Amino acid sequence: MAKSQEITKRSEDFSKWYLDVIVAADLAENSQVRGSMIIKPNGYAIWEMIQKNLDQMIKNIGVRNAYFPLLIPESFLKREKEHIEGFAPELAVVTHGGGEKLAEPLVVRPTSETIMYDAYSRWIESYRNLPLKINQWANIVRWELRTKPFLRTAEFLWQEGHCVFETHEEELKHTIMIAKDVYKKFAEEFLAIPILSGRKSEKEKFAGAKDTYCIEALMQDGKSLQMGTSHDLADNFSKESAFNISFLDRDGKLKHPFQNSWGVSTRIIGGLIMIHSDDKGLVLPPKIAPVQIIIIPIAKDKADEAFRKAAKIAKELSGESRVEIDENIDERFGERIYKWEKEGIPVRIEIGPKDLEQNQAVVTRRDTGEKSPVKIDDLENNLLKTLDEIQKNLFERAAKARDEKNHIVDSWEEFEKAVEEGGYIYSFWCEDGNCEQEIKEKTKATTRFLPFDGTDEAGDHSCINCGKPSKSSKRWAFCKSY
Amino acid sequence: MAKSQEITKRSEDFSKWYLDVIVAADLAENSQVRGSMIIKPNGYAIWEMIQKNLDQMIKNIGVRNAYFPLLIPESFLKREKEHIEGFAPELAVVTHGGGEKLAEPLVVRPTSETIMYDAYSRWIESYRNLPLKINQWANIVRWELRTKPFLRTAEFLWQEGHCVFETHEEELKHTIMIAKDVYKKFAEEFLAIPILSGRKSEKEKFAGAKDTYCIEALMQDGKSLQMGTSHDLADNFSKESAFNISFLDRDGKLKHPFQNSWGVSTRIIGGLIMIHSDDKGLVLPPKIAPVQIIIIPIAKDKADEAFRKAAKIAKELSGESRVEIDENIDERFGERIYKWEKEGIPVRIEIGPKDLEQNQAVVTRRDTGEKSPVKIDDLENNLLKTLDEIQKNLFERAAKARDEKNHIVDSWEEFEKAVEEGGYIYSFWCEDGNCEQEIKEKTKATTRFLPFDGTDEAGDHSCINCGKPSKSSKRWAFCKSY
Repeated sequence: MAKSQEITKRSEDFSKWYLDVIVAADLAENSQVRGSMIIKPNGYAIWEMIQKNLDQMIKNIGVRNAYFPLLIPESFLKREKEHIEGFAPELAVVTHGGGEKLAEPLVVRPTSETIMYDAYSRWIESYRNLPLKINQWANIVRWELRTKPFLRTAEFLWQEGHCVFETHEEELKHTIMIAKDVYKKFAEEFLAIPILSGRKSEKEKFAGAKDTYCIEALMQDGKSLQMGTSHDLADNFSKESAFNISFLDRDGKLKHPFQNSWGVSTRIIGGLIMIHSDDKGLVLPPKIAPVQIIIIPIAKDKADEAFRKAAKIAKELSGESRVEIDENIDERFGERIYKWEKEGIPVRIEIGPKDLEQNQAVVTRRDTGEKSPVKIDDLENNLLKTLDEIQKNLFERAAKARDEKNHIVDSWEEFEKAVEEGGYIYSFWCEDGNCEQEIKEKTKATTRFLPFDGTDEAGDHSCINCGKPSKSSKRWAFCKSY
Repeated sequence: MAKSQEITKRSEDFSKWYLDVIVAADLAENSQVRGSMIIKPNGYAIWEMIQKNLDQMIKNIGVRNAYFPLLIPESFLKREKEHIEGFAPELAVVTHGGGEKLAEPLVVRPTSETIMYDAYSRWIESYRNLPLKINQWANIVRWELRTKPFLRTAEFLWQEGHCVFETHEEELKHTIMIAKDVYKKFAEEFLAIPILSGRKSEKEKFAGAKDTYCIEALMQDGKSLQMGTSHDLADNFSKESAFNISFLDRDGKLKHPFQNSWGVSTRIIGGLIMIHSDDKGLVLPPKIAPVQIIIIPIAKDKADEAFRKAAKIAKELSGESRVEIDENIDERFGERIYKWEKEGIPVRIEIGPKDLEQNQAVVTRRDTGEKSPVKIDDLENNLLKTLDEIQKNLFERAAKARDEKNHIVDSWEEFEKAVEEGGYIYSFWCEDGNCEQEIKEKTKATTRFLPFDGTDEAGDHSCINCGKPSKSSKRWAFCKSY
């Protein structure tokens, strides 16, 4: 269904390259509904792989899935002041149902805190009901003005975890564990994306949270992408009289529990594209690739034999890897190769007439373009090793690219220069929101996070912009971002 | 979270029994949003099992998943006349987005034909793009006035397959295959629900379809439940000028392709509940049960030993079955048993002090209540066999209950009596919509389907109601329904 087309070079126009890669790999397209994309089968298969693997990790930490209503009474959102202020400009509102005007408008969920916590207030009575750990896979609508496939769309798909604990200590530990362990581990292990994680500034945190923790990664254009967040809501929602979530504690006293919420969305596919892909198109890490190996029989005269061989190889590999056979034998060889390259299949195996004679196949890696003839008997071992190597190489390549762009900066002049160059800039900061706004206006860079694993630096430190004392003895990461 | 409560007996009030079973098994509850339910973890886990297994069957027939927008421009729905007439009264309408009134209202999808076929009209150009086989897992909103958890809710979850073919013959074959093979096989094999399938009447078909095929099953109260439908849309949508889906055929001519759509929703969970459950609560067939075996250590004095034994058994069984350990050792034994019975776990294993001494465990079947001591060494084999037997028994029990209520009826007097008794009534019918309406008004029974596997009966047959000639030489199935 995708048309052959040239892909703009990254060096020419990164933003256009990104859109070209999506079209070339047939992942998604804009719909006729403003800001909403259609996720096509190739793109949705990636989301299914993400869902399957992340869902298993979420279940492994004792969280259970549930499903709450799409439409939320408008009044629910108003129950937490910061929350409604944060979301009001982005709401899609249902005013009519079944041919009649509704007494109270319903909003299409922009996130589910309010509808879920209304139920939690009925479900939670005693400490015996805690911790309560629930996750939801759902679609979300936020009326975005400027949209871009996967990165920012009016409707997107995500998971949202919403857990409740007896104490703030226990809740905060869980909140940070989600970012540092679950999300970071998932992105690094499956998506081969090297992750930095830490705490967001007051200005960048979630509307209604005490603090927000995030995972971010540096894209090839030197900008940062936030790929997942975990919010310490403390008792901000539970203590609101409109929710009034309370539990009878072990000591016989009625208390408000502590809550977190955390989410990863289809946006992460945008990151996956921007971190690994190249001028030939999409590059997928083997662990998340819906198809890992494509076998291409190319022996025109010996088509039957080549197909038989391909089928035999596919059968042998299918227990341990996801493999498909390219059956478009009538198309030109170059077109077939080009198609699988664009779609980012990690490994392709060509079986030509000479290969049949020599009982071998030619294995090509998508990440490096490296080609090597492999004896059929060695193929299985070779491929499993190759898939591992590609996964590792993609991670290391991205980590290296990121680290080469690191800036440790103590003067404004250097800061401005570093923003031009791209990459993370580590500087001390006063943590004042107005100062943050000023930095953003001057450079377009924002605070990204205070890294979890930053180093305490001895001595006095002053803010990179205003010169006032730094609030932390660790450096914040600044960067332009999506 | 669920409160202990009495379950109404089926014989007393079937409808109240159904609601009680849902509460007792903690499957779902009504939300504060009119007509929308919250699917709680126990209920959602069943949906996940349904999704996983049905999705695999759908993928096995070469259909790929995708995702289309939730919000559809109102004008799209109007492109097919019957379609908009069918759905207009049920629409939820978004009139405001991002704080502004929208130029064109958007409807929350009541089904996705129009938004998908708008895309298809861009994707399909030649016979080379056909067949196009796409499925979507999504949430749907239809403004229902009278709702009941799972059976009829304003928002529900479903899968909707939408495929396009070159010829009507090919499309119709696929449409019927979905109902007869995929859906029927799925419901029978996994849900242990004996299925009847056939063609709907003109009046009961889908709005916009040429014909609708269905799977239905008889509930314990003698009413029929439609559990899945497959629609032969023919070229009804593709030929509409507003869609204008056309392809250049092999003969060089521009033609309209033929389409089908087919869906199974969370409603099927309502059927699962109503067909197998009993006065003690939910009964789940092993193949769809999120937890198949619950191990209950009950040796208070020897708690450690009982738990060690339970853990060992759980580990051995976990490769081949879904098993959990009941850790609520502080609760009264009766309460623990009652909980797992209500939740419908197919098999429970009790390990008491005597069992430890005799190196055995007591195995209880949820379907029959049958208890038997089993030596630990024989446990694995015994349980796998028992799970199979339960699956088989549930299916056969339901099939027997259905067949015992069959009525083959040739007079109106018998027909009325049969409706009172419940069960399927097989009669000849004129296939006139007005006559159908009359039957419904007089008895509350409706035509359910013309069975695929009905028998041609020789001779002249007249309509059970109006006495005019029967249109088919096969009998239609009539029944009260949900």
